[in-house]
Amino acid sequence: MTHSVFIAGEWRPARSIGTFRTQNPATGEPLTGEYPISSWDDCDAALSAATEAAQELRRVPPEKIAQFLNRYADRLDMLKSELSQLAHFETALPVSPRLADVELPRTTTQLRQAAAAALEGSWALPTIDTKANIRSCLAPIGPVVVFGPNNFPFAFNGAAGGDFAAAIAAGNPVIAKGHPLHAGTTRTMTDVAAGALADTGLPAPTLQLIYRMEPSSGLRIVSDRRVGATAFTGGRAGGLALKAAADGAGKPIYLELSSVNPVVILPGSLEERGEAVADEYAASALLGGGQFCTSPGLAILFEGSGTGRFVTALTQKFDAAVPVPLLSAGVARGLTESVQVLRGAGAELVTGGVRLKPDTPNGESSRFANTLLRVTGRQFLSSPDQLQTEAFGSAVLCVIVRDGSEAAAVIDHLEGSLTGCIYSAQNGDDDALYADLAPRLRARVGRLLNDKMPTGVTLSPAMNHGGLYPATSHPGFTAVGIPASLRRFGALHCYDNVRPGRLPAALRDKSPNGRMWRFIDGQWSQADVPV
Amino acid sequence: MTHSVFIAGEWRPARSIGTFRTQNPATGEPLTGEYPISSWDDCDAALSAATEAAQELRRVPPEKIAQFLNRYADRLDMLKSELSQLAHFETALPVSPRLADVELPRTTTQLRQAAAAALEGSWALPTIDTKANIRSCLAPIGPVVVFGPNNFPFAFNGAAGGDFAAAIAAGNPVIAKGHPLHAGTTRTMTDVAAGALADTGLPAPTLQLIYRMEPSSGLRIVSDRRVGATAFTGGRAGGLALKAAADGAGKPIYLELSSVNPVVILPGSLEERGEAVADEYAASALLGGGQFCTSPGLAILFEGSGTGRFVTALTQKFDAAVPVPLLSAGVARGLTESVQVLRGAGAELVTGGVRLKPDTPNGESSRFANTLLRVTGRQFLSSPDQLQTEAFGSAVLCVIVRDGSEAAAVIDHLEGSLTGCIYSAQNGDDDALYADLAPRLRARVGRLLNDKMPTGVTLSPAMNHGGLYPATSHPGFTAVGIPASLRRFGALHCYDNVRPGRLPAALRDKSPNGRMWRFIDGQWSQADVPV
Repeated sequence: MTHSVFIAGEWRPARSIGTFRTQNPATGEPLTGEYPISSWDDCDAALSAATEAAQELRRVPPEKIAQFLNRYADRLDMLKSELSQLAHFETALPVSPRLADVELPRTTTQLRQAAAAALEGSWALPTIDTKANIRSCLAPIGPVVVFGPNNFPFAFNGAAGGDFAAAIAAGNPVIAKGHPLHAGTTRTMTDVAAGALADTGLPAPTLQLIYRMEPSSGLRIVSDRRVGATAFTGGRAGGLALKAAADGAGKPIYLELSSVNPVVILPGSLEERGEAVADEYAASALLGGGQFCTSPGLAILFEGSGTGRFVTALTQKFDAAVPVPLLSAGVARGLTESVQVLRGAGAELVTGGVRLKPDTPNGESSRFANTLLRVTGRQFLSSPDQLQTEAFGSAVLCVIVRDGSEAAAVIDHLEGSLTGCIYSAQNGDDDALYADLAPRLRARVGRLLNDKMPTGVTLSPAMNHGGLYPATSHPGFTAVGIPASLRRFGALHCYDNVRPGRLPAALRDKSPNGRMWRFIDGQWSQADVPV
Repeated sequence: MTHSVFIAGEWRPARSIGTFRTQNPATGEPLTGEYPISSWDDCDAALSAATEAAQELRRVPPEKIAQFLNRYADRLDMLKSELSQLAHFETALPVSPRLADVELPRTTTQLRQAAAAALEGSWALPTIDTKANIRSCLAPIGPVVVFGPNNFPFAFNGAAGGDFAAAIAAGNPVIAKGHPLHAGTTRTMTDVAAGALADTGLPAPTLQLIYRMEPSSGLRIVSDRRVGATAFTGGRAGGLALKAAADGAGKPIYLELSSVNPVVILPGSLEERGEAVADEYAASALLGGGQFCTSPGLAILFEGSGTGRFVTALTQKFDAAVPVPLLSAGVARGLTESVQVLRGAGAELVTGGVRLKPDTPNGESSRFANTLLRVTGRQFLSSPDQLQTEAFGSAVLCVIVRDGSEAAAVIDHLEGSLTGCIYSAQNGDDDALYADLAPRLRARVGRLLNDKMPTGVTLSPAMNHGGLYPATSHPGFTAVGIPASLRRFGALHCYDNVRPGRLPAALRDKSPNGRMWRFIDGQWSQADVPV
């Protein structure tokens, strides 16, 4: 049986050019059913339906959009066990706590925050100049294509995750390109969304689903005249190819790609609380098999006995933890290759570095030993590009520098990353090093942390899950954090001398809801325009 | 004599690969002095100096940046007569009112608004989540390259205009690529800026000036690792070539390119006040020789007697106005070619269409007859691309449609524009047409106007001087309007669990100035973080 795609409001057979199957990465067993690889015809049909839906959505009051997002969240919560079980089979991520207790609640919280943001309307930065009678706000950008990644079957799912929620809350329809590794989870979530759309009376093509398409169709869809913007979370090669296509057509594309997430551990912090830092590091690096965008893949440490003890402790913890099955055998294969590249560039293997035997006789293993590697600062500086190869999984490279100036040089050679952390002593011993290194690290990352590992990406209005190229495509935007993440999907619409009755609700003298923050004559205010 | 470039804080001879001269476009007479065409060496030196200046600027309090911008504005105001005279010789734009009474005051107002924005700091959208202790704001993006256009020697000058002011106020150094047609004006302004920089103690390379570079160096500078972002105002071919280079390196580039700026004139408005509408249209289209980004190049009119009278009136006004010298003979040449393309695609010449005789025996003419062309809606729809060829100068194409549905089709075929206007009757006769056409036009433009021509771009926080590709490179940003224009030059910096004393001033509990708007726990506030 081949599953249907969801296009123009109906589940229908794909116009496909082939099929694929999913499998349980823990066992290598194939899961039931085949999924279609869509031809351009499916993409084209989805774009046409999305264009019409975009026009309809402009006439829909925000209350209805919020109602849909809330109802969708409620229904997902009700199906928590089933969804977690399904996602577990497809991803090997544990049902509990990961899928059922962390990721699904995160996903529905995100949907509800998006609902609240749509309802309030402040995300659009409505700005009113009463004297000149010029008014502006962000408005829906048009159909948004969301490419979901492999590593979050719920929270970054193209049909339910953060990009989806932000695009919908900003008033846009979404064409979800689900990740093939968890096609069944995405299909089920889309079906839940379809029910919520019908319940609330939104246009059915507010969400459409394609599981997989030819690479050439991917390049074509992100650059199509009908599309408003694209959000892509995933690997660098695919993301940059899509970016080139979208850029060439003048279409915004927001990427959230791989990143090594440097952690600088200053010597005083190890003197003070070395064991605790090693605990925190190991827990963060091993979490979810290290398969996070913000996994701490690169530690910068200072030569000395504290670092020696830290590496020993980390090694013990890595050895003691049983490697989990990764998201697919392909991920294990990629990790094998990355570790080879790192070793080829001079990194010394401290522990791990090998792929484990398959669990089933004929299967391909999806497990890889927890891996720690080490280079000196000098070696790093001789091959800085290769030694920043992302090793997606639980693999950490320790760069051991001689002194502050070598640390500074290493940091200055880092590519853009989503996050950067600095651990320093509480007693002030590291303050001089911090003062020199923090501004350098600040310039390379989107989120700077103190004394804290990067893998928790709090759902906060102040979050930046973004950073410099090549971790993302634009340093001014974040993929997580409402309301800011919605602004990626807005076009600035200005109204100059437009008659009052013709203005959108957000820009009329009377506040549409008494809660929307508007920048009126230089002041942020929730009130009506003063008479 | 060959003029110097201003690099790394000093006026020094360029490492040049050639020279060029400027001339008075009204007379064809060459002006004194030669200007260098810089080699990559100059660009490289400017980038290195800018990188250091960017680091220094991060430690400079906003008060000093504001002080520089204000002092620069004051000095420009004092030199109003000299600057206006100089710019007049180079551009043929009239000293009064244009240069001395409109454009220079606009420029210094913009610098002072930027100073106020830098001082207040609200532009950076500081966001504080006290519960999670996560804080974020926009921070300087890094050295900004500003390419100034030919048509505003002051207000969009790379060394003094809106992009310059926004980039500096956001805390970034600027490398100005002056426009070769008014190299002397840019040189003088840069010298004034250099004095103001010295007075206020900002790093001298906060502004650097290159007059001209090889195209290959342009592609290289916008994609250099050291650059933060680029702003370009000018023609489409050059802008899109730079965009391709910047995009390929993941460097933000903000374009403000040509645009036809459609004006839809509904039949009721002509019945009601046809003569007045023709007056307004002619004044806007003829202003400054039509050499504005927002010049109304395309009128959409409905078949009928009102439109007949309108076209006749416009023809009379175009014929009665003496064509001004354009910014250069090259602009007149470009206009000649554009009118040929329009005619080749089926546009009928109503009046004008010819280049005027040169004023000097051996010169090349920079004057072109005020030009009106006409096509039917049906013809337009058969060659919509060619018939949207921008004719930079006073040339207007009237598209005369049969009915509302043809008007809708014409609008749906428009490329992205900066502005779009609709004139409609006050008595309600046009309301049904407006309701159908306005959403379509809204989707194609950055600024929608009612009953008003687009050429006045008010300096307002609510302004959008932006729009869809290919008029710009991203629909979410504006080149005019403070504080929004500053945000183009900010990178989102998040601080997660960072110790209080290490936070930037904008994100500490205590407001740095009691006036900065910060989004604290979901509320915009000018107060300190509540204890």
